[in-house]
Parts: sequence; C-alpha cells; structure tokens
Amino acid sequence: MTDIASGGPVAPRRSGPVDPTASTTLRPLPLGATAITGGLWAERQRVNREVTIPLGAEKLEAAGSFENFKAAAAGSKGEYHGPVYQDGEVYKWLEALAWEQARGEDPQLAAWQREITGLIRDAQDRDGYLNTFEQVTGPAADRFRDLPFNHEIFNVGALTQAAIAQVRTGHDDGLITTARRAVAQLGATFGPGRRDGVCGHPLIELALTELFRLTGDPDDLALARYFVEARGHGVLAAQGTDRFAGSTYYSDRIPVRQTTAPEGHAVRAVYLAAGATDLAAETADPSLLAALQAQWQAMTGTKMYLTGGLGARWEGESFGDPFELPTDRAYAETCAAVASVQWAWRLLLATGEPRYADLIERTLYNAVLPGISLSGDRFFYVNALQLRAGHPEAEDERVVSNGRRPWFGTSCCPTNAMRTLASLSHYFTTSSADGLQLHQYAPMRIRSGDLDLEVATAYPWDGRVEIQVGSGGDAAWTLALRIPAWAAGANLLVNGQPTGVAAAPGSYASLHRRWSPGDVVRLNLPMPPRLTRPDDRLDAVRGCVAVERGPLVYCLEQADQPPAALVDSLRIEDGPLTAVPQPDLLGGVTVVEAPGRIGSSPDAAPVTLRAIPYFAWANRDLGAMRVWIPAVVQ
Amino acid sequence: MTDIASGGPVAPRRSGPVDPTASTTLRPLPLGATAITGGLWAERQRVNREVTIPLGAEKLEAAGSFENFKAAAAGSKGEYHGPVYQDGEVYKWLEALAWEQARGEDPQLAAWQREITGLIRDAQDRDGYLNTFEQVTGPAADRFRDLPFNHEIFNVGALTQAAIAQVRTGHDDGLITTARRAVAQLGATFGPGRRDGVCGHPLIELALTELFRLTGDPDDLALARYFVEARGHGVLAAQGTDRFAGSTYYSDRIPVRQTTAPEGHAVRAVYLAAGATDLAAETADPSLLAALQAQWQAMTGTKMYLTGGLGARWEGESFGDPFELPTDRAYAETCAAVASVQWAWRLLLATGEPRYADLIERTLYNAVLPGISLSGDRFFYVNALQLRAGHPEAEDERVVSNGRRPWFGTSCCPTNAMRTLASLSHYFTTSSADGLQLHQYAPMRIRSGDLDLEVATAYPWDGRVEIQVGSGGDAAWTLALRIPAWAAGANLLVNGQPTGVAAAPGSYASLHRRWSPGDVVRLNLPMPPRLTRPDDRLDAVRGCVAVERGPLVYCLEQADQPPAALVDSLRIEDGPLTAVPQPDLLGGVTVVEAPGRIGSSPDAAPVTLRAIPYFAWANRDLGAMRVWIPAVVQ
Repeated sequence: MTDIASGGPVAPRRSGPVDPTASTTLRPLPLGATAITGGLWAERQRVNREVTIPLGAEKLEAAGSFENFKAAAAGSKGEYHGPVYQDGEVYKWLEALAWEQARGEDPQLAAWQREITGLIRDAQDRDGYLNTFEQVTGPAADRFRDLPFNHEIFNVGALTQAAIAQVRTGHDDGLITTARRAVAQLGATFGPGRRDGVCGHPLIELALTELFRLTGDPDDLALARYFVEARGHGVLAAQGTDRFAGSTYYSDRIPVRQTTAPEGHAVRAVYLAAGATDLAAETADPSLLAALQAQWQAMTGTKMYLTGGLGARWEGESFGDPFELPTDRAYAETCAAVASVQWAWRLLLATGEPRYADLIERTLYNAVLPGISLSGDRFFYVNALQLRAGHPEAEDERVVSNGRRPWFGTSCCPTNAMRTLASLSHYFTTSSADGLQLHQYAPMRIRSGDLDLEVATAYPWDGRVEIQVGSGGDAAWTLALRIPAWAAGANLLVNGQPTGVAAAPGSYASLHRRWSPGDVVRLNLPMPPRLTRPDDRLDAVRGCVAVERGPLVYCLEQADQPPAALVDSLRIEDGPLTAVPQPDLLGGVTVVEAPGRIGSSPDAAPVTLRAIPYFAWANRDLGAMRVWIPAVVQ
Repeated sequence: MTDIASGGPVAPRRSGPVDPTASTTLRPLPLGATAITGGLWAERQRVNREVTIPLGAEKLEAAGSFENFKAAAAGSKGEYHGPVYQDGEVYKWLEALAWEQARGEDPQLAAWQREITGLIRDAQDRDGYLNTFEQVTGPAADRFRDLPFNHEIFNVGALTQAAIAQVRTGHDDGLITTARRAVAQLGATFGPGRRDGVCGHPLIELALTELFRLTGDPDDLALARYFVEARGHGVLAAQGTDRFAGSTYYSDRIPVRQTTAPEGHAVRAVYLAAGATDLAAETADPSLLAALQAQWQAMTGTKMYLTGGLGARWEGESFGDPFELPTDRAYAETCAAVASVQWAWRLLLATGEPRYADLIERTLYNAVLPGISLSGDRFFYVNALQLRAGHPEAEDERVVSNGRRPWFGTSCCPTNAMRTLASLSHYFTTSSADGLQLHQYAPMRIRSGDLDLEVATAYPWDGRVEIQVGSGGDAAWTLALRIPAWAAGANLLVNGQPTGVAAAPGSYASLHRRWSPGDVVRLNLPMPPRLTRPDDRLDAVRGCVAVERGPLVYCLEQADQPPAALVDSLRIEDGPLTAVPQPDLLGGVTVVEAPGRIGSSPDAAPVTLRAIPYFAWANRDLGAMRVWIPAVVQ
C-alpha cells in the first residue's frame, strides 16, 4: 500500500463503504468476506456490471462530464456541461467502478477508472480546490459564493467516497490524493476561526467521517463534526443566495440534535442523518445517537411509504408532514432509498437492533430496486405507488407516467443505484465480539478469518434458508439470524434438530455453539401472501389494502389483469391469497392471486387479481398500476 | 365622459367588469342595476370596504409598491421593491377602489385612487412602456427580455382592467389613457410581422377583449386574439429564459383550441381560458367556444375540489392529473377560484347554461370566501381541505398550518378577493331578449330600465327567496330563476299560487307573464343537510363523505367538537343530520350536527359531530380540520 497523502501513511484494511474504527455493536465484515453467489441479487449485480455501469460511462461522456474536467485542467473558461453537481455524478460512477472491480477484475473497468481518475487529478487547482463548474465558468472569487446551490462541498464528498473505495478495494489509481487535497482545501476554508458555512446538499459528513476512518487524521473528523453541528441554525439562509424554500429544504432549520423528524429535501435530510450517525458512532456520542434513533423512528412511523420510499412531496423533493403520503404523487426518489439504506446500516452497526436490518431489506427490494429496469438500462427517478390509466403526457422527465427513462439530466439515481449494487454484499452480514450476524438472505459465501459458510436459498421467492458450515473455527460462537418482522411462524433446525432457540419476528435468533464442518442450519421463514392494512391515519389510502409476501410489496399492473379488468376499477376481497411462481415472467417472479371484483357496485363481477412484485412494474407496456388496492366493503 | 384616448371618443355604458358588445345569450345588467342589500354578501362587502381595501393601501405602501412608481417617474435606477408583478398588485387594488366607489362615494377611496393613478401616469415611459421593475432595475434593452417570468404584459393587463373599471364606474382619474398607451406599446412590439411572444402569466387576453368592448378599437381585439392564438406552441420555452417546468406550466404546451383539460399553473390556465372565452364570444367563434366548454367540463369533472377549488399541486401551483386531488396538500389558490368565477361567468353569458352559474355559487362560497377571514384582515393563499392536529411549523407563508396570514409577499390573493367582492353583484343577474335571470340569491334590489324588483332571503342559511315586483314594465317578460343542482324538491309560487312551471334542479325555472307592482314570487329551495359521497375514482378521499347544505360545503373544525373528540380520529355515521342556526357563532352560521364515533374500532364511543361552513374555518384557534370525513363502515 502506498503512502496515500500528506497526512502520513495508512495501512487500510480491505473493507467496504463503512468501516468504523470506534467500538460499535456490530462491525462490517472485511471486503469480499461476503459474496452473493446467485439468485435475484446476483442477477441484479450482473446486469449492473454488464449493462448499467457501461451505460453510465456512455451517458456521462455524452453529458460532457469528462469534458468539464478537461476544461478545468486546461484552465480554460467557457462552456460547462450539466448541472452544478455533474462532477458528483462522475464520482458516484467511479465509486461503483471500484467496488465492481473488487467483485471481479475487468480491463474495461480498470481502464475507465485509470483514465477518469487522471482527468480528475489534472483538473484540481494547485490549492486543492476542485469543482469544474466554478473552475470553468466563474472567477476564482466565486468559489463557495453560492453554498445553498452550487454543491461544491457535496462534490468533494462524492469524490472522497470514490477515493476511499479505490483504496479499500486495492484498485487504487490515486484518487485519494486528489480527495485529500480537496478536503484539506475545505478544511482551510471552513470551520471555527475560518468561514462559517455548510453545503446546501449534505454528503460531506459521511465522506469525512469515513475518510477519518481510513486516515486516522483528526482534522477529517473535526471537519465532519463542524459540518454536522454548524447546520440547523439557518446558516444557508444567512448566505443570502438561497433560491429555494428556505432552511427547511436544506435541513438547516433545526440542529440535528433537536430534530424530531426529518423534514425538507428527503435525500439531503437522510444523508445528513446518516453522516451524523457515523459521527455519533465514531465519537461515542450517545445523546446524538439517541436523537437520531428517535428521528428514524418518527420517520419510519409517520413519513415513510410501505415500500420504504421517502419523500412525499414533489415540491422541494421533500418529506411531507406526518401521515401525508399520497400514492399518485409520491416522490420516493430512488436516491432517498439509497440514503435510507445507508442510514439504517449505520444505525444497525451502532445498535445491533433488528428493525434497522428489516428496513434495509424492505427498502432494497421495494424502493431501490424499483428504480432500475430489469434490463438495467432504464430508470425511475420517482417511484410513485400508483399510476392511473391514461397517464397524460408530461414534460418533466421524472414523471412516472412517462415510463422508465434511459437517463436523466440529473443522473443521481442511476449512479447511486450503481454504487449500491456494486457494494451490496457489504450490507448483508456483520460480526461482533461473540459471532456472526446474517441480516439479509441470498445465496452467498461468507469467509472471514477461519470461518467459511455457504448460504443457499431461493429468497425472496422462498423463505427457506440453508446455511452450511464449511469451516467453523475452533471456538464456540454465535450465529445470529435475522427473523424479519413479517415472518410469523419462523423456525429453525440445526442438523435437522429443533434448537429451542426463539425465532420471534423482529428479532435475531441466536445459535451459540462450536460449529463444525458439515453443520447445517435450516431457517424457515414462512411467506404466505398477506394483506396489509394501512394505519388509520393514512388518509391517502383509506379503505385500501396492500398485498405483501415475504419482504416484497406487490402491486397490480394492468398487463397482468384480464382485459375487462381495468386496474383503476378493481377491488380486492378479503379472501384466500395464492402465491404462484412464474419462472418465465419478468425474469422469474412469484405472483400473488387474490379474489376481487371489477367495480364497487354490489353486483360487481368477480375476478382473480394478479399482483406482481412492485419492483418489477413498468418493464412492459406502461399501464395503470397500484400498490394500495381498494377493498370490497363487506 | 371625456375623450379617453387616441383611439377616438367612446361613450361607455355604466357597466361592470364584463360587457360584451357581440351578441351573447345572456347580458350583464348595467352597473348598479343590481345592489346587494343585506345578508352574508352585504356583510362581506362591508368588511371588504371598511377593512380589507384600507389594509391593501397600508400593505401595498409598506411593500414599497408606490415607491416603485415614484422611482420610475424620476427615471432613477436602483432599488425596486417586491416581486416583478408588484405593479399588478397595485392595479388590482385600484380596480377594487373603482368598483367600491360605484357602490358608494368615499373621499378616502377617491383620494387614494387619484393619487395612485397620478403616480402611475407619471411613471410611464414616453413610448407607453410601463413596468417599474424593468424601469427601475434594468437597461431599456431588457424590456420583454424574460417573458416567461417578468410579468410585464400581465401587469399591463391588470392596469387595463383597473382603467376600464374607472371609466365604467364614472370614477375616472384618467388611468385609461395610461393603459391605452401601454397597450399601444405592446401592440407595437408583439404580433404578426413584429415580435413573437406571449406573457408567462395570462391576463392580458381578458383585459384586451374588454378594452375592445370599451373602445371599439379593432387593434385591441386583434392583439387579444394574437396573444390567445400564439400561445400553446412552446413560444415561451423558445425564449430560452424559462426557469420553471416548461411549457405546461405556462399553458404553452397545447394551443387553447386543442386543449382537452386545463393543465399547468392553475391561475394562469384559467385566466387564459376566460380570456379565450371572451374572444370566442366577441368574435362569434363557435368552435373555440365548444373547445372551451369541453375543457371546462373536463376540469370540473376530474380536476376540481368539492369546494370549487382548483390546483391540486403545490409544485408549480398547478392542476394535477385527473382525479389527483389530495386534501392535505390541496393548493386551491384563492386566485384560482377568482379566475374560475370569471371563466364560468363568461361561459354563462355565452351559453346561458345553468351549470356555470351553479359553479359560480359553489366557488364563491367555498373557494373564494375561505380566502378571507371574517374580520377581513387575514388571508389564505392556499385552501387545503384538511389540516391534521399538530400542524408542524413551516417556513412557507402560504402553508395552511401557519393559519391565516396578515398579508403575503405575493399579495395576489387579497387584492383579487378585494376586486371580486367590490364588483360581486355584477355576477348575480343577467338579462336577455326575453327577460331577466337571477343566478345568485341574496337580499338585493334590481332596477333596470323600467323594472324594479326586491329580493328578500336569508340565503345561504335558508332556501326561501321572495321576489317582490315594484315595477314590472308594460310588456310581458320572463323571470328566470336558477334552481341549483342540489335543490331537490324546489318549488315556487306566484302570488301564493302554484305556477305549474318546472323547478328541476340544475335548470332555470322560467315565469313568463306581464308583471305588476305587488306581484310576489316565492321560491323555495329546500336545504336539508346532505352527505356527499366522492367519485369512486377519487383515491384521496375514499371511504369518506362530506357534509353539505344548500350551496355550502361544511367541515369539522376542532373548536366545535368535544375535547375528547379529536378531529383526526372522528368517523361519521350514515344517520340523520340536523341543521342548527347559531346566530352568535362565527358571525352567524348554521351548523350541521351528525352522528359519529370517536375512532374506528367497533366499540368506538358515539359522539355528535358539529360541522361548520368551510369558509368560516380558521377564524378561531387553529386546530385540526377536515372537509372529507371518514365514514363508519357498517
């Protein structure tokens, strides 16, 4: 490992996106310790590698993103391409390249990374400042002139995350040097005794804490702490350049320690909360952690869609008030779901509480995955829970009624999805002082230290999970298996025998023993389809129910109904639900059949409703869709 | 009457805001022919005159509006006050001053009008250009540089409407000269063979057609036609300065003749439709009129709240898709309701169809009136149909959870309400070749030609309306009385005798006879409280019902319920409703009592729900409110 920067040599562990150095309840496994080997997620990772990431190269090139770096390197003033955060799109894609190379070498991925890392390095100003928008369009005096809007600090955050990925994967082309210089320039500009300011879009907080974890440089942690604590005092409004809706939008109305529920722009609020959670963990700050846990509880209890989607309002891409959760105009940005996974993961590491892993599961399947087509080359920015028939034309490219789009002028969602899928296995397992925890289920191989486990399952289509011990080490340890909150009747066997260990939904089943090669754990998470009734306070879906099965939220899409059964007029009955595997449908899904009626009149015609997983909708002709289905009133 | 401008002398009739010169099915009565003499609307007019209009003077002064004119007159560049449409706020208030003086002389109103009319005259550039924002802040070359945003043409429209009011009321301080010079400058700038362009915010279309009606100058009508027809071809997007969501926002995506339902910014879309309706009437264009009628039908059938409120989305203050009508985040801007009254009035004049008068009634009571406090000095910009308990703090001054506000940075709603109330009686009656039509009911005196009628009623609290003939003229004529669509069982007597004339809801009852002094018509519009069920496609209010009585939409407000009965948890039963007059409540209203339950569990406690008219909510401590009430499922 090379000496990576002026901060002195570091000897990074091979690790994933999050690697706490302080004592946390749970710890991520080293990079590569968990590999997804088959099933739904392996297929999504394959498509991500073979289709989506190469598409990113093409689209970022076409958007002029790389030209921006070249222009900055040449010192030329003139035409800049894309929104002010275009650099950040490149960085997120670069982060995906690094994680993806850790999953498997590839000369094209390596070549892209090498080339673009070089462009970025060359674009950096001598003092470390790097932001091609300002470099290409503005006089130097304009640096950080428009903190609410210009995303300069945000971009350094994304750069730093990509650089950390390069180091941790061992596929390092030197981006970390560029990142540390940019961070040093930020540190020389902002903070106590220097300029007061934060970025309109949080992200730097996550990046700086993680950088500290990599470098051990206390300045990095101090700057993270500064950006977290400075926020919430209207500091951006005080800049006088705010062109949006004020401090709420920027999570700058209330300090994070006093915030009772996230508000404003959802992606910003959740990145900030995730960064603050990192800070709480890294600085052992229990009161900050408690505040964040309460905030998370309020968010998930009053401001979250059944899918895990966040952000009820198009206006300001923001959280709504409690229980304001429209289905047709749900925003539920794909990026907000990615941010939510990141936040829940940090809370899980800090606390070990299963509710956070439950939400990661719900969000990955039902809020991140819906953002990417099965083919990997079409995307949703917004994830509405309902589309009526007729879906009028709309100019806004984000509108769901336009169907999945091949890219966006603001391409955060595709690039965020790329880096998430490329690093996905990071979020599936952890270790602790007394053993190993399985939080998510998929076919996977887990090798850590002297342990070697193989997980076999057809999850999420089948709730049976088999864990084979290849090597269990010498000492006794605890294998903890998450029992999802939905998994009533879960049970497990070790080597075919009942264990007496509780497998209560919403807990971890803990098996403590000395594990031997050939030991087999069979976990059974029953997955009968179920009808979910909304909270009585959810006005937007009163009188409706949703179909769920296992971790999946289902929806009615027009393509699966008989021609006379228009989704907009269907009603569901409180009758038996049937799960029907359909290997040839939508890449292989299990549909759920339910008794229903066409229309709401007492003599409405009976019909069998066919629901598909929500994540798979809009992969055929775009038709009406709904997650929440009006119930036949008995 | 003075010679008002270079277009030659005109001899205007005393008339109200709309005075077609072409043949229309119905014609407005001359100004002053109908006077509201008592009851709810007389009280609202009194408060408008004594409180709201003087408040307008104070707030417009405080906002620096008048300073803008002075600065422009002085030719000084420098500080401009308020949004780019601030001039327009002054003009709408000036329009209210004129109508109000026609209702009764007042030295203060006259002094304000004289002074401000002079300021405006002095501010006008030599070539007729008048827009203090550009005059004070920009070089002359910047004129009309930013048509999507700068409201320069919109402001001339509002100026022209105020000027027309001055002429028609006979309280003329010469604003018409200023307006005609500004219009001439527009005409020299835009149109065939000149510059292609329309204003981001329609209004000029209404103003120019009305100006033509006043002046007879064909150039005015031609320019109105140009602005109507040029729109809908993306002309604003082609300007390249659009900073919003594209052509949809500006009603510039589809030509008005091809538009099937209004879309985009609600106020803009409806002003445009109203202006196009004027044009269709004035140019006898039946295909344009038919297109507008179809558009209106689609709007009212799929994009309108029960209250008559328009605009489902905060984002872009815009119409939603069909059946997208959230209650909590309803936008339903007060100005959109004012515009809707204006549009429906023009359709009523053109066609004589009662549905338009029905909507004017619904909208005045339930969408315009809620925008003004009973005290006349607090306002709603946005008219949500639901407020949950807790109503979190919000920075945006428009948010209903902040309660009624004393004014707004964008003060269109208060000034629009002022001019509407000051000219209200204009919208209540019409004449036609064969007689007189009563569209709205209130205590009023109607004197037109040799007719003299007195209307006595306690409407909207009591549906009995008595019309006394003071003078009926010599010939036989038809008295047509609107039977509202809600008035099942309506009946009427002439001089105590049944007439055999049909009084079907949603029609006009037509009494043809020779009327003699002392003749009395007694119309009875039964007003039992009723439960209104939503369209099955209205997802946002599924499982709910609304209480209505007569023309009024009701709501549950927390202040009227027992302390243990929190509005957010109330359910309504399908039981008997009772109307209870409450002379001391909220200025005198009739409340509706309904059987209900506290909570949705089968053993929920019974409770009597007390509903008040929606227009009267938020005049006490701000508590939870809802129009649509979840029904107990039987």
